[in-house]
Amino acid sequence: MNTPADQARDPLVRAAQDWWTTEIIDIHPGQIDVRGYPIEQLIGRISFPQMIWLMLRGELPSADQAALLEAALVASVDHGPHAPSIAISRMSVTCGLPLNGAMASAINVLDDVHGGAGQQCMELYREIDAELTAQGHGPDAPLAESDAVDAATVVWARWNERGVKYAPGFGHRFHPLDPRAPRLLGLVDDLAATGAVGGRFATIGRAVEEAISAGRRRRVPMNIDGATAVIYSELGFEPALGRGIFILSRSVGILAHAWEQTNQGGRIKGPMPPQIPFRYAGEPRRKVPDPSGTEGRFFSVHSSATPSDTTEPA
Amino acid sequence: MNTPADQARDPLVRAAQDWWTTEIIDIHPGQIDVRGYPIEQLIGRISFPQMIWLMLRGELPSADQAALLEAALVASVDHGPHAPSIAISRMSVTCGLPLNGAMASAINVLDDVHGGAGQQCMELYREIDAELTAQGHGPDAPLAESDAVDAATVVWARWNERGVKYAPGFGHRFHPLDPRAPRLLGLVDDLAATGAVGGRFATIGRAVEEAISAGRRRRVPMNIDGATAVIYSELGFEPALGRGIFILSRSVGILAHAWEQTNQGGRIKGPMPPQIPFRYAGEPRRKVPDPSGTEGRFFSVHSSATPSDTTEPA
Amino acid sequence: MNTPADQARDPLVRAAQDWWTTEIIDIHPGQIDVRGYPIEQLIGRISFPQMIWLMLRGELPSADQAALLEAALVASVDHGPHAPSIAISRMSVTCGLPLNGAMASAINVLDDVHGGAGQQCMELYREIDAELTAQGHGPDAPLAESDAVDAATVVWARWNERGVKYAPGFGHRFHPLDPRAPRLLGLVDDLAATGAVGGRFATIGRAVEEAISAGRRRRVPMNIDGATAVIYSELGFEPALGRGIFILSRSVGILAHAWEQTNQGGRIKGPMPPQIPFRYAGEPRRKVPDPSGTEGRFFSVHSSATPSDTTEPA
Amino acid sequence: MNTPADQARDPLVRAAQDWWTTEIIDIHPGQIDVRGYPIEQLIGRISFPQMIWLMLRGELPSADQAALLEAALVASVDHGPHAPSIAISRMSVTCGLPLNGAMASAINVLDDVHGGAGQQCMELYREIDAELTAQGHGPDAPLAESDAVDAATVVWARWNERGVKYAPGFGHRFHPLDPRAPRLLGLVDDLAATGAVGGRFATIGRAVEEAISAGRRRRVPMNIDGATAVIYSELGFEPALGRGIFILSRSVGILAHAWEQTNQGGRIKGPMPPQIPFRYAGEPRRKVPDPSGTEGRFFSVHSSATPSDTTEPA
Repeated sequence: MNTPADQARDPLVRAAQDWWTTEIIDIHPGQIDVRGYPIEQLIGRISFPQMIWLMLRGELPSADQAALLEAALVASVDHGPHAPSIAISRMSVTCGLPLNGAMASAINVLDDVHGGAGQQCMELYREIDAELTAQGHGPDAPLAESDAVDAATVVWARWNERGVKYAPGFGHRFHPLDPRAPRLLGLVDDLAATGAVGGRFATIGRAVEEAISAGRRRRVPMNIDGATAVIYSELGFEPALGRGIFILSRSVGILAHAWEQTNQGGRIKGPMPPQIPFRYAGEPRRKVPDPSGTEGRFFSVHSSATPSDTTEPA
Repeated sequence: MNTPADQARDPLVRAAQDWWTTEIIDIHPGQIDVRGYPIEQLIGRISFPQMIWLMLRGELPSADQAALLEAALVASVDHGPHAPSIAISRMSVTCGLPLNGAMASAINVLDDVHGGAGQQCMELYREIDAELTAQGHGPDAPLAESDAVDAATVVWARWNERGVKYAPGFGHRFHPLDPRAPRLLGLVDDLAATGAVGGRFATIGRAVEEAISAGRRRRVPMNIDGATAVIYSELGFEPALGRGIFILSRSVGILAHAWEQTNQGGRIKGPMPPQIPFRYAGEPRRKVPDPSGTEGRFFSVHSSATPSDTTEPA
Repeated sequence: MNTPADQARDPLVRAAQDWWTTEIIDIHPGQIDVRGYPIEQLIGRISFPQMIWLMLRGELPSADQAALLEAALVASVDHGPHAPSIAISRMSVTCGLPLNGAMASAINVLDDVHGGAGQQCMELYREIDAELTAQGHGPDAPLAESDAVDAATVVWARWNERGVKYAPGFGHRFHPLDPRAPRLLGLVDDLAATGAVGGRFATIGRAVEEAISAGRRRRVPMNIDGATAVIYSELGFEPALGRGIFILSRSVGILAHAWEQTNQGGRIKGPMPPQIPFRYAGEPRRKVPDPSGTEGRFFSVHSSATPSDTTEPA
Repeated sequence: MNTPADQARDPLVRAAQDWWTTEIIDIHPGQIDVRGYPIEQLIGRISFPQMIWLMLRGELPSADQAALLEAALVASVDHGPHAPSIAISRMSVTCGLPLNGAMASAINVLDDVHGGAGQQCMELYREIDAELTAQGHGPDAPLAESDAVDAATVVWARWNERGVKYAPGFGHRFHPLDPRAPRLLGLVDDLAATGAVGGRFATIGRAVEEAISAGRRRRVPMNIDGATAVIYSELGFEPALGRGIFILSRSVGILAHAWEQTNQGGRIKGPMPPQIPFRYAGEPRRKVPDPSGTEGRFFSVHSSATPSDTTEPA
């Protein structure tokens, strides 16, 4: 921003201005530039995934890169009302929240456990990538599957030792095979065949599946998080942004369910229908003790409303 | 705050300082004053409810006022896992959120429907109070029950015409009689008998119960929100703060359940156990249409991964 | 969902299942259908904006409809660190929040004032649309500009009477002309020329600008919210979804700024640099009063730590 | 809860009920028990801090324990608009949020950095406690200051090695001496003198101050977080609850500032007054590139609105 205050000589004003420094957006009266591009030149010319990339990375992606990012964005929008994020979104609107509030409460829970598998999987891939490079299989040479499996096995053993039992991005408590994963991986393969992406992380992802399934009767297949982790890694995103992009995608499902619930109506929707009670497993009913420090602290003397000491459990 | 910058002559610095103006707290190196009181003189001498009052109102309450506020704070802490706020708190920690995050997602839903009944009830009482004053029964004279019932009937009819069907603060889908309400009302009566509070809103609250129950086979009794609305009105709080204070109280339950769930463990806890499915009521399985503008937008030509068109619903 | 529990005869299980009913997504082991479409057929074939539309509306949009929605999604991603949503996102990460938490706190504030202008503008357009239809200028006939201006003038006068001073979607405290608005409106014109959209709401939007600028020295031009409101209205979205879609767009900026701040570092970043103090405008320093009910409530007798009564204001 | 469904024979209903299990609250029609106590016996008889303790710990505290907890709750309510939590609360209401929403966005940021110092300090104390016990200075014998300093020095060196530079709970960027800390520590000393608490953690806390100040010209004094960590440790709370209780306290300030801002008014309040601009440090203005895959993706052919390619940076 470049206004009269820019010329301010007072160092405190300068400090205030520096306090909020960004390389993302520049604004002047009548002018908005995103990463240097006039906004009116971007509107109607680049796709929404290209804008996401530009905002996060600073430069425009190629058409192929944008297409791959877009496929991942499409894939993760929803997993139904059993997902806490979706359930919270729906419950929120029945408490009176508008869409922004429902989305906030829901997006908030996309934390390490519910929203972090992709990020953790990217870190796993990255460690295998480093292991391969250390073993002389750097990113510049073609990667043999067997070398990738060896490195995955070494790294996964290391994670096991650290106490990690389940590989993030692999296996599913519900789906024997997550239908999104092979489709996404196929798209990566297609682009790798044309050279648009390297394909190294697709090989690494498949190697992880091999390594963690070794010696098991049932394969532990790659799931949606493992597949999008391949894509985001191929595209050069930092692991933390794996979570960030996932949130952009899942926000769509969170909004759609909030909206559906708005139209369904309902007030103060609990997790289960009211006819099904929760289970109480604590102390049986008892009387409040009567130590001098506690009893009647406020109303002891003049209270006609002191609850009867003979109150008994129903 | 009074630092060298206070003497700043630059009007922009002055504007920045004014941008954040408060009458609540003053801070200097080694000194913290709350509403003018040195913090170290408050600590260990005033109660937590007194501090809540001081922060919200600017002055310290009397001991009786604080005791009545405290009773209301104690009363509203929890209503079990069927309350969306409590359920969301518990679900949040299973998604990986720390206590602050779980509390945020949960407190957020204490909006108009789930957390606003007390506030709306205070507005109802206030309108009846104004109606009474307009009829010559101002706050300075004793209030006859029958006058209060008349005014409550008039005002409630007005609310009915506006489309309000259920009186906020009255009735309960679960409790035939909410055990917290008579206890709280009794405490108000005790303090009214000593002159510590006026008792006008206790009369108004009871008059509402009378007015809305007229002609019904079953009484619609005052619930916790109606009773705390009496207390907050007696104590002179604005209706919006009725919600604010309720949130301070319910935060305790939200925290306690978040903590219990933390200790119980569990990951990605949905609203119901996974064995009970949700119900799908939408379109049966169908194929993606193939208009020229859509099909193969990204991967049409070289894709070996295009999903088979013969895919059929399971 | 169709699992053994579907055949449950217990009506409580059936009630639990019905409690969570959706038309959006259907899930079976190995199968995920969105609005009836197998997810693996959508991935890589439809764009992200098409998926957003499908999730919110139930059917796939045409290519033109999707392109117009996409232009609006691209336009609203960011308005810099002076926007409270963006500032909150950045401050949040310096408090230790991961990206999901920063996004939640920020998205939450996209409420009526900061995120609701588009929605309110859609309601204004809708009321003008209804006024026009009532005057015999229904959606089936071409709409003359002068008729639209007449209807806009009537409706705006009505809003004025209700106390609305500023037309939502028009004027900007910073930009004399918001560069995004004419660009977006131009895209609508292009599609209206081909018949892909009707163009009625573009005419209505321009009529509002005419009506509210009448008699003023300076025109009050349409801003981004007024222009996206034209687009969402042309596309048939409900006003509430105008806010919802805006949030999907602005989430990109919120994420990008959270990520930039993560890389900039900083801890507990307040709104202004610490050298610029806030302004205290409350009570001067004073002593805690000493009524019997307050003083020494907890520690009066044995406290050696009672703060000195001789403490004087600095 | 004990309703007809309790007798359900269907194992799925039983599973649903077990899915939500709590030891905190039991609810039947007309009956609410908290930790076994009828709620109407608690209201008006126990203090709000006692209720907080009961909810979190399962049993009622002694009067002394409650008084110490109360002092800590009073101490932490606020630290002014420079604290991000407070600023966010105030900004939120200017965006249209009601009090619950403002509190949610603000409480959310009380994470590791802004709200976690107390919790981390409790972990530090706990490790020193364990070190002392390992050295034969268990909790049953009186603790010599010099032994505590030795153990603190050992443990602090260990934390240093792990990369921790600043001891959580000690030092303040603003206050040379935080006036809340000595007052709180004095209260602990008073109760330790009567035997109401052990005093071991007060000794440990002071030992940390000694250990981390060794060899420095200026002492690094205990701050509010270090002092409340002493109190919560004396009272036997888990470290995570140190953060939880802090949030209950700070919620009061967050609410009070939200309410003050509500009354001050203002719309879309950014972090600094609009006259002070932020600083843009990114790419200078540039043109959108024109690769075949990007240009005119949506509107290339028929667009009369394509932005002029001659647009030049201002």
